[in-house]
Amino acid sequence: MIGRSLVTLDDLSTGQIQELLDKAHYIDGHRGEVADSCKGRLLATLFYEPSTRTRLSFETAMLRLGGQVIGFAGAQQSSVSKGESISDTVKTVSNYADIIAIRHPKEGAALVASRAAGVPVINAGDGGHMHPTQTLADLATITSRFGRLTGLTVGLCGDLTFGRTVHSLIETLCRFGGVNFVLISPEELKTPQYVIDCIKESPSCSYTEVKDLTQVIGDLDVLYMTRVQKERFFNEDDYLRLRDSYILDAGKLALAKRTMAVLHPLPRVNEIAVEVDADPRAAYFEQVRNGMLVRMALESSLLGVELPGYESVGAAGMKQEQEVKD
Amino acid sequence: MIGRSLVTLDDLSTGQIQELLDKAHYIDGHRGEVADSCKGRLLATLFYEPSTRTRLSFETAMLRLGGQVIGFAGAQQSSVSKGESISDTVKTVSNYADIIAIRHPKEGAALVASRAAGVPVINAGDGGHMHPTQTLADLATITSRFGRLTGLTVGLCGDLTFGRTVHSLIETLCRFGGVNFVLISPEELKTPQYVIDCIKESPSCSYTEVKDLTQVIGDLDVLYMTRVQKERFFNEDDYLRLRDSYILDAGKLALAKRTMAVLHPLPRVNEIAVEVDADPRAAYFEQVRNGMLVRMALESSLLGVELPGYESVGAAGMKQEQEVKD
Amino acid sequence: MIGRSLVTLDDLSTGQIQELLDKAHYIDGHRGEVADSCKGRLLATLFYEPSTRTRLSFETAMLRLGGQVIGFAGAQQSSVSKGESISDTVKTVSNYADIIAIRHPKEGAALVASRAAGVPVINAGDGGHMHPTQTLADLATITSRFGRLTGLTVGLCGDLTFGRTVHSLIETLCRFGGVNFVLISPEELKTPQYVIDCIKESPSCSYTEVKDLTQVIGDLDVLYMTRVQKERFFNEDDYLRLRDSYILDAGKLALAKRTMAVLHPLPRVNEIAVEVDADPRAAYFEQVRNGMLVRMALESSLLGVELPGYESVGAAGMKQEQEVKD
Repeated sequence: MIGRSLVTLDDLSTGQIQELLDKAHYIDGHRGEVADSCKGRLLATLFYEPSTRTRLSFETAMLRLGGQVIGFAGAQQSSVSKGESISDTVKTVSNYADIIAIRHPKEGAALVASRAAGVPVINAGDGGHMHPTQTLADLATITSRFGRLTGLTVGLCGDLTFGRTVHSLIETLCRFGGVNFVLISPEELKTPQYVIDCIKESPSCSYTEVKDLTQVIGDLDVLYMTRVQKERFFNEDDYLRLRDSYILDAGKLALAKRTMAVLHPLPRVNEIAVEVDADPRAAYFEQVRNGMLVRMALESSLLGVELPGYESVGAAGMKQEQEVKD
Repeated sequence: MIGRSLVTLDDLSTGQIQELLDKAHYIDGHRGEVADSCKGRLLATLFYEPSTRTRLSFETAMLRLGGQVIGFAGAQQSSVSKGESISDTVKTVSNYADIIAIRHPKEGAALVASRAAGVPVINAGDGGHMHPTQTLADLATITSRFGRLTGLTVGLCGDLTFGRTVHSLIETLCRFGGVNFVLISPEELKTPQYVIDCIKESPSCSYTEVKDLTQVIGDLDVLYMTRVQKERFFNEDDYLRLRDSYILDAGKLALAKRTMAVLHPLPRVNEIAVEVDADPRAAYFEQVRNGMLVRMALESSLLGVELPGYESVGAAGMKQEQEVKD
Repeated sequence: MIGRSLVTLDDLSTGQIQELLDKAHYIDGHRGEVADSCKGRLLATLFYEPSTRTRLSFETAMLRLGGQVIGFAGAQQSSVSKGESISDTVKTVSNYADIIAIRHPKEGAALVASRAAGVPVINAGDGGHMHPTQTLADLATITSRFGRLTGLTVGLCGDLTFGRTVHSLIETLCRFGGVNFVLISPEELKTPQYVIDCIKESPSCSYTEVKDLTQVIGDLDVLYMTRVQKERFFNEDDYLRLRDSYILDAGKLALAKRTMAVLHPLPRVNEIAVEVDADPRAAYFEQVRNGMLVRMALESSLLGVELPGYESVGAAGMKQEQEVKD
């Protein structure tokens, strides 16, 4: 992955995704060992729209690896206000930084940036389009809870029409295969056909579409919650009638398996009751930590930095081969 | 203090406050020795309202100890704009940082944050409520000028009704005792009763209330200036008549003791004439430096970081005891 | 230069400017050696108006030297909103930082700041007035392309009336001498008389004023492009008629020497066609890198930090003299 950009998860093979998850797990257990591995490296966070959670995660990742950070948050603080193109900004910043994380309200901005840049670019979200490190955080959380990504029943609940994190997660899980999806949403917010097609094309995946969370929650290994926004409904009556069905509280959680993991991309408004936070099934703040860890794995991988003591399965395999030859 | 939060100075014993002042003094004389003591530690500055002076002080403190900083300044840059609660933001940031400094326009925000956080939280000002590190800076400045906090005549001048720094300083000095307060303000801006009661309840403190600074300035060891704001008056005539009485200039300063120390929480507008800056009695920029030093002491203490070469009186005492036992 | 401020390039002798250019060149070839030379030093970037490019350049410079950074960008985030003077802000920040870079919309702000500060202040642009590190970047780029600043034909094209970078570059080149200036602009945007006088007073410089870029481009060693803004014209017809004459594209570039260097202070809007970027004569992104390098040279020089392995011509000379004496 050295020197490459990450615009969408399609840029990575499932082997490379697995490698990032392994590396994130290694980093978590070896914080001290990796603390200086990016010394002398500089990350630029170019956030054309505010997203504090994501920005701080990228920055923490680099600082925890011993690197440094420059950047801006909010377009009003950038040369954009003088009409500069993304390409020119990225070409300029390539002279300062060793790696760039870009967030932009327009779809395709990260791709444009990656083509102009002289250093690796990570897409930190471009419009409603792609946000690959969020999906990596989701995958890392499922892996850390179950030790695997396959053979699971994964429920996705709420707004399945507009939630990009949900689509990206489904598509990526389909590449690994072996997942039974339960798609829980009101009629108005059903999963788009192209995502359904993706599941159908994956040989070992299956799905069901339902409207009632309580009816299926007992079957789930993972419950991925999203927000149901008022603006998505034609009339307020429908919204008020449906809203409560898609709020996770202690009552609904009582019907779930003891090992189920609750995920949410955050920020939440009220779609998960605060009382759920104390339940060991709540995994959404773990997801935040995993988001930082996968970003550490990603930044170090794209920079080509070795993590002391870490040996990838691939590298180990090559090494063994080498030894045999010797 | 390790692992604890600081929401108000009532969270600390007078012994602990004294320990922080001692530590700040030690740090000032041993900048090089302490320069790496927080290596690998991360401070998050969550500033929901801008306060550059305070934010830069907290950040400098951590950087001067060898740590790193992440954060935001101004609510428009945070997930708050998406309706996230303070608790959720703080729970998230606890996954990134080792310690948090929070500034918020609402009273009680820091307490809420400290309860949600998994790491120590320092209140960097919540509304008109509390700003404990400002008071620590005030105390450190008095100590550095007089070698003690007791046996002093402390004048407080200007707006004594609304100034939270003034109330907090009086209350904390009352805990140490032995202070003679001179409360200098117009009728409209007198010290509130609960603060007066606090002085009355302190066995060794006394106070007088006056309207005229020139009349009492000759008695003062410390003169703490605050701003008299136009908005506080019912009519402009009263404001214009009174304003000049509460402006410190070279003329009034000529009536003061040669050893008097002038403090001000800054920023000032015109309540201290610029000509006063060059006078050795002006201590308000020293106060800025002391603010940074007490924040270094506080951050390292809450993180449980040892400062090379520093031995607290308590620790030394315990060590001696230990040695006697051995 | 140790401990001094840089408000305008007139603060430096041509020898000192040459020393900074030499140092920048040394730094470029010895990134690893200098990477820790400012360890423990803190830069404050006080940007009262946004200028991401310049701010990130100053910050990168300090981080690449092993130092740290604090600061703000945009006045809304500073105590300025509470009415604090520049002097008070700078006096405060002098307690935090070892060196300050200030950007302010008002002319003279940097001079005021340098007088109030207890540490070196670098002018990062004050209104339409001065922006000395931009000129240093321009000079470094010319030097890196031609190995010298003299004996060159330097064309400046576009808005020569309002562009401060153009005036500053001409004035500084005149101090070094031996430059033939070609001033290319519409009648409405001619070079001001005081800049013309400056060229006339320089014994070894000459100039011509023309309106047509294509006519002279074949003579130029350096072509410094600037933007022609619509707002500068009395009527839109004039603007539309003239605009294209001052846009550099592949067609016009075909008429130029193979060794010509195209400079531009950036950001550009459309005055250089994107197709030009790939041409080896395009030097404007090199200029960005040189901007960072001269800021590294400047920050380390004002801080009095020695760069490992670097020996200035002056220092070497003095050393030899010393050795002779010994």
